[in-house]
Amino acid sequence: MRKKMMMVLLAMLTLLAFPVGAFAAAADGPTNVQLQAGLNSAFTFLAFILVFFMQAGFALLEAGSTRMKNAGHVAGKTILTTGVAALAFWALGFGLGFGNDGGNGFMGLTGFFLSGADAITSFDSLSSLDVPVTIMFLFHFAFAAVSLSIACGGMAERAKLSVYIVFGILFSIIIYPVVAHWVWGGGWLSKLGMQDYAGSTVVHLTGATAALVATFLLKPRLGKFNKDGKPNAIPGHNQVYSIIGVIILWFGWFGFNPGSAVSAMGDGFFGYVALTTNIAAAAGGVFALLVSWMVFGKADIPSMLNGVLAALVAITGSCAFVAPWAALVIGAVAGIITFFTAQWFERAGLDDPVYAFSVHGIAGMWGAISTGFFATPELASVGQAGLFYGGGFHQLGVQLLGMVGTFVFVLVISFIILGGMKAIMGIRVTEEEETMGLDISEHGTYGYPEQMKLVTDAEARAPKSGSFS
Amino acid sequence: MRKKMMMVLLAMLTLLAFPVGAFAAAADGPTNVQLQAGLNSAFTFLAFILVFFMQAGFALLEAGSTRMKNAGHVAGKTILTTGVAALAFWALGFGLGFGNDGGNGFMGLTGFFLSGADAITSFDSLSSLDVPVTIMFLFHFAFAAVSLSIACGGMAERAKLSVYIVFGILFSIIIYPVVAHWVWGGGWLSKLGMQDYAGSTVVHLTGATAALVATFLLKPRLGKFNKDGKPNAIPGHNQVYSIIGVIILWFGWFGFNPGSAVSAMGDGFFGYVALTTNIAAAAGGVFALLVSWMVFGKADIPSMLNGVLAALVAITGSCAFVAPWAALVIGAVAGIITFFTAQWFERAGLDDPVYAFSVHGIAGMWGAISTGFFATPELASVGQAGLFYGGGFHQLGVQLLGMVGTFVFVLVISFIILGGMKAIMGIRVTEEEETMGLDISEHGTYGYPEQMKLVTDAEARAPKSGSFS
Amino acid sequence: MRKKMMMVLLAMLTLLAFPVGAFAAAADGPTNVQLQAGLNSAFTFLAFILVFFMQAGFALLEAGSTRMKNAGHVAGKTILTTGVAALAFWALGFGLGFGNDGGNGFMGLTGFFLSGADAITSFDSLSSLDVPVTIMFLFHFAFAAVSLSIACGGMAERAKLSVYIVFGILFSIIIYPVVAHWVWGGGWLSKLGMQDYAGSTVVHLTGATAALVATFLLKPRLGKFNKDGKPNAIPGHNQVYSIIGVIILWFGWFGFNPGSAVSAMGDGFFGYVALTTNIAAAAGGVFALLVSWMVFGKADIPSMLNGVLAALVAITGSCAFVAPWAALVIGAVAGIITFFTAQWFERAGLDDPVYAFSVHGIAGMWGAISTGFFATPELASVGQAGLFYGGGFHQLGVQLLGMVGTFVFVLVISFIILGGMKAIMGIRVTEEEETMGLDISEHGTYGYPEQMKLVTDAEARAPKSGSFS
Repeated sequence: MRKKMMMVLLAMLTLLAFPVGAFAAAADGPTNVQLQAGLNSAFTFLAFILVFFMQAGFALLEAGSTRMKNAGHVAGKTILTTGVAALAFWALGFGLGFGNDGGNGFMGLTGFFLSGADAITSFDSLSSLDVPVTIMFLFHFAFAAVSLSIACGGMAERAKLSVYIVFGILFSIIIYPVVAHWVWGGGWLSKLGMQDYAGSTVVHLTGATAALVATFLLKPRLGKFNKDGKPNAIPGHNQVYSIIGVIILWFGWFGFNPGSAVSAMGDGFFGYVALTTNIAAAAGGVFALLVSWMVFGKADIPSMLNGVLAALVAITGSCAFVAPWAALVIGAVAGIITFFTAQWFERAGLDDPVYAFSVHGIAGMWGAISTGFFATPELASVGQAGLFYGGGFHQLGVQLLGMVGTFVFVLVISFIILGGMKAIMGIRVTEEEETMGLDISEHGTYGYPEQMKLVTDAEARAPKSGSFS
Repeated sequence: MRKKMMMVLLAMLTLLAFPVGAFAAAADGPTNVQLQAGLNSAFTFLAFILVFFMQAGFALLEAGSTRMKNAGHVAGKTILTTGVAALAFWALGFGLGFGNDGGNGFMGLTGFFLSGADAITSFDSLSSLDVPVTIMFLFHFAFAAVSLSIACGGMAERAKLSVYIVFGILFSIIIYPVVAHWVWGGGWLSKLGMQDYAGSTVVHLTGATAALVATFLLKPRLGKFNKDGKPNAIPGHNQVYSIIGVIILWFGWFGFNPGSAVSAMGDGFFGYVALTTNIAAAAGGVFALLVSWMVFGKADIPSMLNGVLAALVAITGSCAFVAPWAALVIGAVAGIITFFTAQWFERAGLDDPVYAFSVHGIAGMWGAISTGFFATPELASVGQAGLFYGGGFHQLGVQLLGMVGTFVFVLVISFIILGGMKAIMGIRVTEEEETMGLDISEHGTYGYPEQMKLVTDAEARAPKSGSFS
Repeated sequence: MRKKMMMVLLAMLTLLAFPVGAFAAAADGPTNVQLQAGLNSAFTFLAFILVFFMQAGFALLEAGSTRMKNAGHVAGKTILTTGVAALAFWALGFGLGFGNDGGNGFMGLTGFFLSGADAITSFDSLSSLDVPVTIMFLFHFAFAAVSLSIACGGMAERAKLSVYIVFGILFSIIIYPVVAHWVWGGGWLSKLGMQDYAGSTVVHLTGATAALVATFLLKPRLGKFNKDGKPNAIPGHNQVYSIIGVIILWFGWFGFNPGSAVSAMGDGFFGYVALTTNIAAAAGGVFALLVSWMVFGKADIPSMLNGVLAALVAITGSCAFVAPWAALVIGAVAGIITFFTAQWFERAGLDDPVYAFSVHGIAGMWGAISTGFFATPELASVGQAGLFYGGGFHQLGVQLLGMVGTFVFVLVISFIILGGMKAIMGIRVTEEEETMGLDISEHGTYGYPEQMKLVTDAEARAPKSGSFS
């Protein structure tokens, strides 16, 4: 009898050992799942702040690429559009982009103001992640703000300040979220298997297409083209700003691309993404500089800067899908085609002061297409391998469809929005205001009051030179 | 007999299974507690470097908001005060702030030079954390250095360089650590349940109150007020600097506020803190710009910048305790009241060149009070819910007490220190030195030698204009 | 019979409980080893981006320390050399530095283009780490790019642009990787137990020695020395840039030194490294400023900036091996000796425009030697305790050997490379080009077109002053 009881006791103890063993291991401290969630949250938060910091890069790049009389305005509107995007994307944009679309494939319809978001129930497209919705929102807000900054680049030195507010709200709600939903939010391009790891199409082509429309509707800056249509150079006033801006953007891109892994696990795959990103950027800058040297006879710094950025834009879509050598090719080609297209657009009469469409649009298109050529079978976690890896034309076709679909959609909607704004409120400052500079016309003071006094004094002494206006 | 032995053996094995099961899980690699400590350490380290980087933001903001002849001095003293704070806070400040106070509730008395710190035995106030004391020290040093930079903002363009050294040491020992101890180091306000998540009161109001005293004792800059008391605008020389400075500060605030969780665990609560921080900053900037537009007829960029910063200051205390919609209200109100108080102080004859008291003091007070209104029952991990959430006037009273106590303490001690320094060593440069600029008077060379040659040449040609002085 | 079977079953169950207990704990989510690898990967990635961002610091520091007519060139070549280093170090440098050397102790011979790198089989020197080779590559690329930027600092304001490309490739392949292999890649100095935690010798002395050779071969800038050999001051054009550059470098150094732990575990040892780094930097800045005040009668800002950097350079090698008080001494001494040697080199006829050899070379040597004095027995994880801690002269001897070996190797190879380039392609622009500035001569446009128009107009009015050239 005692033996039996003892045996039963032993059996119970033995069975207890299984869960207790498991539980004991976890009892002290958080579980492994919780630790992984904490790590991935911290990693994605790091990625968010890096992408957020790209606004400092845009502000410096754009201010440096424009004239002294507009410097405060150009840099300052970056903070304004970031603020506008933060509020509009929180209120509506994030839900339209990543909310449940009820099967429409076009745009999300839940999760406005992050309501119901704690449970991630409103965000089917995020439900596979262990990062809290607050951090995913911030990460995607930073992307939306980058796309908006690109769009606003096309407006530089002639758009009214109010345009940035009104267009900033509408872009953050109607334009960016829709494209994001198509590719990343479970929409129709996502279902077709479009490859756009961190947004060559979603972020860059979208922003650049809106910039193209703005450039077209605003018309060129005063003095950009002679009566015979020949373009004049309007050099930016501070290359050091532009250079630091590009270093900041390159730095921030290490949040943009590797951060899109949304995880620090997976044997450090985000490190692979950082590697291809860095190789492409380096190749884009070096090749664009060399091409400018051959074409102009001088190593042109703005061309090198555009080359770095164009390469980063192009590799953004493909960074996770291609081999390092392909990253070098994608980056170098992006740097070179951006160099030539920038000049071609200028000769065609388009005044794009900070090269928004060449750098983010043309390179964005090349980035979309490039995975159709270079995606390897091992890395194609979304979609299929590219043409050069035996995947045939399937993926290339999907990429072209996504690229054209995005371009046409953004082109049409931007035309409607900006065209409507032009008709209703006007989008361009007067000639007089443009001549005096937008710092004065839009804000009442120069961004550089002491230096501008030297300039205006010099102009007063030599009233006919006009070289500063 | 053999059966008995076998049963005993089985029983022993079974009992062994419990600890071995637990141990086996952990044997391969670190324990979960160690992993959590590693993750939280890395996270807090990230927060530290972000707050440290805010010094670049302050240097740019202040240099951009002052004149060319003082630019090297204004930016350079930021490095000097950071260095002084690093040494003084290591030697004495951290122990006074976070050491064991033996029950006095006023200031800590152990842990100077981080002695005995490895075991965290000297730091009762940190003992619940799993982050090593070295990283907690660095994190709090960065906070102290921010508070000191705010204080020094009130001295811009007229204080002697030596003031920054002497006051920097005393502030890092006598002023900041005491307030930090009260609220975060286990002192009397901590025991009352004061809510100040990341330092609206501890960091910002403390620094700003010292700035107010400095502003008062130093008297206005030459030319700031006419004989009839009417203020003249002395615009800063470079808005691009100021704008980049504010973007850097906004970026750094993602270390300030979310980093104050001192943990990446807790279901990503730090992400929630980042969300409220971002919403408030955006609202502050947008609303301050709109108000300036209505009042001045022009959208004033410095007002927008102050609005962003004021909102960040205000949400610093409440970011962890309030709902997103309340963050929007707190930020917008901060932006608006800072706009009006900045003008009111100027009309009252106070010359605060970089708006240190309006931005960090008034908004810091509003931040302290706001949790008394908006803290929700769910989020009030310290103290109680606010007035609007059925908490009655209790928390509001605690917040007011903490705010007034801090203000009075810092006001009195700063008066004693700076008043004593004024009597003993003098705190202001001569009129002649101020006119030539502090780059020359304090450092022997202009910060911009080539540009200042243009300015001084122009002044020599037009000696009576005086517009550059 | 049933009893026996039951007992056997029980025994089997009991034995099963051990592995199942272990397995159950880990089954849900990643293993602890995987979590640690993820955490360390994210931490090292953070360190990489911080070191990468130091390029923004170098660009600002160097542009600010040189003249307006060269600003675009000086800042822009930083991006160029970073791009060149990224490609060359990927192709060959990393394999030469960290590949398997087959016992030669001189340089690695495997892992070019990161081939075979996924398995880390090619990188014996990295096999003890759990961070993927992609991230280790990026981390070391960023170090190589810093070393190259230091080297190029000695060329400022007179070297042809092509020099940066050709020398950049050769430095990234032949010079930096060899020294890195000696100390960190398992080479002969590593076997002797040389202590160089994050590269006082490997990164800073290497870059600075190449800068010294460049300075010597390029000869001084026009106007730097009078006919009697007396030096003229050629002040940099923008101290704000230089100051922000130094804050960025200080910030980036928190990746450089703590990141060299390549782990966020180990009870937060990286935090200890950050602590000594910060104390040294603060001491270097404060002491250098005070010394300049005593010697010049004015608190010289460039001297303070050099003091911060020299202290950071010196503590780089010893940060993990010394006590906090020793960090203060090492930093203060670095700041002071750099102040005096900078002047001594200038009086000796050497024109080192951004003080590359004083700041990175002299302080790098001091950093190498200092661990031989100050390394404590507890902290000397590599090598032995220093002279002041009873370790005798052994470690000091190893440090001196490593320092002299590195200096001689880099001196000789740099002479061969740059001397060869001087003979074959020329390394200096013409006098005419140098006078007009390298922005025009090398790139075809001014970096500051509007401001330079004011300068050139002023020169045209006063053709004999020559004060701007």
